[in-house]
Amino acid sequence: MTAFHAAECLLFAPAGNVHKTDVVIIGAGPVGLFSIFECGIMNMKVHVVDALDIVGGQCAALYPEKPIYDIPAWPKISGGDLIERLVEQAAPFNPTFHLKQQVIDIQKDEETSTFSLKTSEGTKITCRAIIIAAGVGAFGPNRPPMKGLELYEGKPEGQGVSYAVIRSDDYSRKKIVIAGGGDSAVDWANVLAEKAEKIYIVHRRNKFRAAPESIRRLELLESQGKLEFVTPYQLHALQGDEEKGQLTGVFVRTLEGKERLLEADCMLAFYGLSMKLGPIEKWGLGLEKNHIKVDITTQQTTVPGIYAIGDIAAYEGKMKLILTGFSEAALASHQCYSLVYPGKAYHFEYSTTKGIPGQN
Amino acid sequence: MTAFHAAECLLFAPAGNVHKTDVVIIGAGPVGLFSIFECGIMNMKVHVVDALDIVGGQCAALYPEKPIYDIPAWPKISGGDLIERLVEQAAPFNPTFHLKQQVIDIQKDEETSTFSLKTSEGTKITCRAIIIAAGVGAFGPNRPPMKGLELYEGKPEGQGVSYAVIRSDDYSRKKIVIAGGGDSAVDWANVLAEKAEKIYIVHRRNKFRAAPESIRRLELLESQGKLEFVTPYQLHALQGDEEKGQLTGVFVRTLEGKERLLEADCMLAFYGLSMKLGPIEKWGLGLEKNHIKVDITTQQTTVPGIYAIGDIAAYEGKMKLILTGFSEAALASHQCYSLVYPGKAYHFEYSTTKGIPGQN
Repeated sequence: MTAFHAAECLLFAPAGNVHKTDVVIIGAGPVGLFSIFECGIMNMKVHVVDALDIVGGQCAALYPEKPIYDIPAWPKISGGDLIERLVEQAAPFNPTFHLKQQVIDIQKDEETSTFSLKTSEGTKITCRAIIIAAGVGAFGPNRPPMKGLELYEGKPEGQGVSYAVIRSDDYSRKKIVIAGGGDSAVDWANVLAEKAEKIYIVHRRNKFRAAPESIRRLELLESQGKLEFVTPYQLHALQGDEEKGQLTGVFVRTLEGKERLLEADCMLAFYGLSMKLGPIEKWGLGLEKNHIKVDITTQQTTVPGIYAIGDIAAYEGKMKLILTGFSEAALASHQCYSLVYPGKAYHFEYSTTKGIPGQN
Repeated sequence: MTAFHAAECLLFAPAGNVHKTDVVIIGAGPVGLFSIFECGIMNMKVHVVDALDIVGGQCAALYPEKPIYDIPAWPKISGGDLIERLVEQAAPFNPTFHLKQQVIDIQKDEETSTFSLKTSEGTKITCRAIIIAAGVGAFGPNRPPMKGLELYEGKPEGQGVSYAVIRSDDYSRKKIVIAGGGDSAVDWANVLAEKAEKIYIVHRRNKFRAAPESIRRLELLESQGKLEFVTPYQLHALQGDEEKGQLTGVFVRTLEGKERLLEADCMLAFYGLSMKLGPIEKWGLGLEKNHIKVDITTQQTTVPGIYAIGDIAAYEGKMKLILTGFSEAALASHQCYSLVYPGKAYHFEYSTTKGIPGQN
């Protein structure tokens, strides 16, 4: 993924330290990244917090290679390249990134007009203003509602429960339960059938929703005995060594209560991704249907000094487009200026006049 | 200028014809160009009117080579290249351009909800919606307030009154009055001094405002008798054959009324550029200080069906940035959709899903 190229020049802070900055941006997606630039040209220092372990949000994590057509002056650009260019544009302002952590607490000292943030990794940051560019929240795989599931998660591949295949070789000669009926489930069943000892594909319907060609291949493998359809069945319970997180089997059931135990070393569940706002819900920002309502003229939330931009921000006439988020980033950053430099008028200059650090 | 490259694929309509379209965009600057794309992805046909003879507005006409730093995902891009990319993005939707003309009249038929536009070149266009992206209006050189000035304008170079040098050779062995005290006046005096028979540089002050190195050179040329400072003098009147537009002399005066006649074949006036809204002022759109007030949630003006975006549009919190104009272009275009396709819901899709004509 190209996004890592420019990102190599960025500063990633180790977790658990204490920092002081001008503005904290929550969310390192395209709109958060452009906010770094906008704050930067106004001489504001920035720290960025994101739940993912890479910058770029969904563009980098979900569709790095998919072309986007409606970024102005980019007739066609992939999600990954877009992030690459935004990182390049932000980099001269030396932002500090705190990845793989979520902001779990925000306190405001009204006397000093200072915010104190805490993250899930124990990082503490104080700042004068906050820009929330959290998109639709942190996103992750949909987890099947099974008792003790977490005991089998995060284990080496081929041993417990996973939601993605990182190294397909780790599944060689394994007994695998694949759960789901969409493209991911079907495609991985086809790929792993060559290596696995046994594959059960568990789906609540008899019909799979995937490309016809993939389904034909799946049916061919089934007819050759290389995998077994377990349909219409649903996941029911896990069997294994909970202490070691070593799966030994998966109980599945039909709607009528008919049960089977599938012997398995590991399970791959492909139920799509879901978006979760996470701790943001507890910040008292007047969430409405998972969105933060803002003043359309300032992007300010109900809390003075906290701004929301991009997909998470709601106002009348809002369009959920990346390019709209860019414009909101400029607006919110200008608002931050009066908090970071109180009493100092910002002398607006066109970027053509002023230039950028290290560029002229 | 690179902007002409992609522009070669565009359709430029001959003046004076009658057209029918969905949306008319007034102004072919960056924000107007991006509106073509936004209307295009929603299946709306577009005609564009601009006062200049090229597309790109100020970016193309005034600073094609100056770098811009605050276009999202473009760490650095020249005005010309920005226009080039926006034209490339708009081109698949086959917009029709009407250049070198201004919209002088807009009529609305309330019964059919149709607008009829007339331009200064006699072109007539009917449409369902109008997007005004006219920037700060049509811009042109500041003309000195002299009687009969227009009789000497638009003549071959070296003969009448001009505001720019296109071919410096046309000034060989000419007697030239250069008016103004800024960079353009000083730089051209320096360049033309080598070729001209005589140069008078007329300025209302004794001091020129230009790069020190240019002023040093100007003073050197003056000391060598290659040009003459006529300061502090102001332009007063023109002398010549008004019918042929052939200048023979320029009367200049001091504030105290002292007059001189400078013998001259031609005059170059460098008093900067000015912006004029022109006929827009007469459209009844509630102009305020040369801006059109719009509804922040729709970009609609006081006239339903007419939208204003970019630098000409005013609302609370407005930032005059190109990137803000892009966002407004998306918003206004979506509003137009309900007028072009009344009763038809627009099924919003991400550009990643839908693609663009001829691209996938």
